[in-house]
Amino acid sequence: MTRAFYIGRFQPYHNGHHSVLERIAPLVDEIVIGVGSAQLSHEVENPFTAGERLMMIAAALEEIGVPYYAVPIEDLRRNALWASHVFSMTPYFDIVYSNNPLVIRLFDEAGMQVKTLPMYRRDTLSGTEVRRRMVAGEEWRSLVPAPVAAVIDEINGVERLKQISSSD
Amino acid sequence: MTRAFYIGRFQPYHNGHHSVLERIAPLVDEIVIGVGSAQLSHEVENPFTAGERLMMIAAALEEIGVPYYAVPIEDLRRNALWASHVFSMTPYFDIVYSNNPLVIRLFDEAGMQVKTLPMYRRDTLSGTEVRRRMVAGEEWRSLVPAPVAAVIDEINGVERLKQISSSD
Amino acid sequence: MTRAFYIGRFQPYHNGHHSVLERIAPLVDEIVIGVGSAQLSHEVENPFTAGERLMMIAAALEEIGVPYYAVPIEDLRRNALWASHVFSMTPYFDIVYSNNPLVIRLFDEAGMQVKTLPMYRRDTLSGTEVRRRMVAGEEWRSLVPAPVAAVIDEINGVERLKQISSSD
Amino acid sequence: MTRAFYIGRFQPYHNGHHSVLERIAPLVDEIVIGVGSAQLSHEVENPFTAGERLMMIAAALEEIGVPYYAVPIEDLRRNALWASHVFSMTPYFDIVYSNNPLVIRLFDEAGMQVKTLPMYRRDTLSGTEVRRRMVAGEEWRSLVPAPVAAVIDEINGVERLKQISSSD
Amino acid sequence: MTRAFYIGRFQPYHNGHHSVLERIAPLVDEIVIGVGSAQLSHEVENPFTAGERLMMIAAALEEIGVPYYAVPIEDLRRNALWASHVFSMTPYFDIVYSNNPLVIRLFDEAGMQVKTLPMYRRDTLSGTEVRRRMVAGEEWRSLVPAPVAAVIDEINGVERLKQISSSD
Amino acid sequence: MTRAFYIGRFQPYHNGHHSVLERIAPLVDEIVIGVGSAQLSHEVENPFTAGERLMMIAAALEEIGVPYYAVPIEDLRRNALWASHVFSMTPYFDIVYSNNPLVIRLFDEAGMQVKTLPMYRRDTLSGTEVRRRMVAGEEWRSLVPAPVAAVIDEINGVERLKQISSSD
Repeated sequence: MTRAFYIGRFQPYHNGHHSVLERIAPLVDEIVIGVGSAQLSHEVENPFTAGERLMMIAAALEEIGVPYYAVPIEDLRRNALWASHVFSMTPYFDIVYSNNPLVIRLFDEAGMQVKTLPMYRRDTLSGTEVRRRMVAGEEWRSLVPAPVAAVIDEINGVERLKQISSSD
Repeated sequence: MTRAFYIGRFQPYHNGHHSVLERIAPLVDEIVIGVGSAQLSHEVENPFTAGERLMMIAAALEEIGVPYYAVPIEDLRRNALWASHVFSMTPYFDIVYSNNPLVIRLFDEAGMQVKTLPMYRRDTLSGTEVRRRMVAGEEWRSLVPAPVAAVIDEINGVERLKQISSSD
Repeated sequence: MTRAFYIGRFQPYHNGHHSVLERIAPLVDEIVIGVGSAQLSHEVENPFTAGERLMMIAAALEEIGVPYYAVPIEDLRRNALWASHVFSMTPYFDIVYSNNPLVIRLFDEAGMQVKTLPMYRRDTLSGTEVRRRMVAGEEWRSLVPAPVAAVIDEINGVERLKQISSSD
Repeated sequence: MTRAFYIGRFQPYHNGHHSVLERIAPLVDEIVIGVGSAQLSHEVENPFTAGERLMMIAAALEEIGVPYYAVPIEDLRRNALWASHVFSMTPYFDIVYSNNPLVIRLFDEAGMQVKTLPMYRRDTLSGTEVRRRMVAGEEWRSLVPAPVAAVIDEINGVERLKQISSSD
Repeated sequence: MTRAFYIGRFQPYHNGHHSVLERIAPLVDEIVIGVGSAQLSHEVENPFTAGERLMMIAAALEEIGVPYYAVPIEDLRRNALWASHVFSMTPYFDIVYSNNPLVIRLFDEAGMQVKTLPMYRRDTLSGTEVRRRMVAGEEWRSLVPAPVAAVIDEINGVERLKQISSSD
Repeated sequence: MTRAFYIGRFQPYHNGHHSVLERIAPLVDEIVIGVGSAQLSHEVENPFTAGERLMMIAAALEEIGVPYYAVPIEDLRRNALWASHVFSMTPYFDIVYSNNPLVIRLFDEAGMQVKTLPMYRRDTLSGTEVRRRMVAGEEWRSLVPAPVAAVIDEINGVERLKQISSSD
């Protein structure tokens, strides 16, 4: 059995994340999804709680159909301990998929096998752009899977982001 | 839709936990399972990592068949903030099931509906007894669901507990 | 009895804070004043300790004559827990006065009544401007209540700010 | 002007604390009252939040009539830093009153003048005894100043303590 | 080149520690000495600061003459991260010497070579006994290397321990 | 005996640090070298672990020949406690050498004697410039003592810095 690890902040979960997970799914038996900076929320860069992000992941992964674990990972702000921190919070995994240089380096120094994925156009999407559109009142729904948009609506996510983005 | 919250330390997951979850499952649509003291491991009272406990839960819940989220909850050591901490790390839930007086009190002060469950004989089981048997080399497999015993074997859990329980 | 909550960093307490508290005072019986980022001091943006800021508040509030509590509030860097953190450190209050979008949002999500105040000219004052003048050796005393200026003199506040603002 | 420092956990504020403060009051101009272990609450040994303890202090000090500051002090669990931590959170003070050997030692190493007070019979009172009586349903009101009892009633303090003291 | 790691709390450094280091010294080129629970001091079980313990180690190691690094290691209270924490704070080492089951386990899970040492009579010495004698006013100097006793005298260590051990 | 304190981040140890320590060495008996921001590593501004920085210091100080202690100092992010934090982690010292305004201020408020050193041309060197050259593939070895360059090579330091500096 092969279990893969993939981490993101998912602020919010968008088509770029979805595209990566769709491509990893057929290659492995199970995916462990780390929800990074789990302790942050109600910030312009991090509007959603870890729990809300777990809801988005559950909604989106139903489509993909791969068995998965979604696990909040709080920041330690000690990079040298970060891989151990991830290991302690997650089921054992065999391989890491990441295009983030620091994530790659830290798992590499910890002796893990790390693979990068070729970028698709959808991967160039960023949470920054999704949040910018939400604040600006522009169209953002096409950038996230439909079930994720439904979760964001249910939790009034856009309203929260707009409010905390307004100036004093 | 009704989503329930249930929390334990799961050191290890045993028949008492299983019995509670079996009884909650038919009453709700989804269960959020909090893995308490998530940051602790490799201690006599807390031998297993949060990730290992997630593996036990996944193995055991397959039998029950209810949709669930399993979420590590790190200790804050600030009881007044604990309910908010749980809320931030978990999907929204409507009801809490607990027989722990502090858990009941903290969710009650946070305005949540809390229900207790009548105790069955199997509920009187404690992680303490399971760990005592493991250290003593006594029979412990009958106290946990079979798939959980398989996880504990896979991670050499008994050996670890024995070693950290030996005196200097 | 009505108790109101108002929070600031008070680096230092200036006429803007004073004007807000003067307007809240006649509307309520008691005011709970939160001293935010209490753990920070000796920084260009946060030169004064929480204790020094308590001295400024005591000096200034004597003029206003409203019963009050002044309470240091350390940062948690977990917004989802912040309202509970404030609740745990302060006497119970019924209403929050704030013009800060994040403070408004967090108390609103916690179910508190929040009111904003129309801005006066004096409210547009910022601690940033007071600190800038102190560092530049410009006139700053007219921007703070006279008893606050006396506290800042007593603790040699301007000298400290100038020193930590000098470059290496 | 002389400002004195006195620290307690005030779980709850009782006649022993009151007697000490009554004797310090005539000797100094102002008292800084530290509320120790401020972050703890909802525990058998620490049932009340820092904010609730501030309410008890405010109620009790009205009788004594001395100007005071009451300041929550969170535990650092680093004794070597504790005196600096207290200094940073409180207005400047000239003298410490304490009978606690560790408090005496830490302020002494920090160069502060520390005085002990002769014990009165009322001083032998302990928070432990007050809490024991509350849990046991025994008479406890005579052990605390009447205005403190009123605060404890207002916040349903005895009920909370009883509930968290009950066994699982 | 071989570099070994050895960890203790050194409260205080005693003949047991010294005997172990004397036996490791000829086997390796350099020793990395971890000073555990570095953040604790002024406690009955942990009277000395990390800095004071570094002074004791420097005084004692002069006799042994092996090149060494002495490094304070603060507690993390997350066993799963502890080996990484040690690695991040210390020069690289090849081998660990320890008789502590938890230390052995944690380095073993981290893939390190761990060796135990046969116990000598002097090894059965414990910091507990040294501290007990200090508090009781009994003879303790024969239990520590002479240069360590000189450091303890220089810092008035026995007086501090006696004072914090006295009851309130 | 005179013991001096000097602190830097040593990311990496360069000729500027070396020049300062060479000038302090003849003035004192021992030097305590604080390794600041000890918990940080694997960041563009802080690539090396505290342990790796201890190795660089040991390599460089052999040339200078002064007795020294090198001690990792983790950030507290509470400036008012920082001097006490340093005192607790280090052997006692009599004098501080620093040109950093905040370090000077904090030790000055703690009652320590602080001296500045006239700047040499080599002192204008910064870790920022050394790291920039490493990332850019430019010549950096002339900016650090030769034994430090050897340590950086041994730990593959440049490769790590390049990798974590690459963009996602």
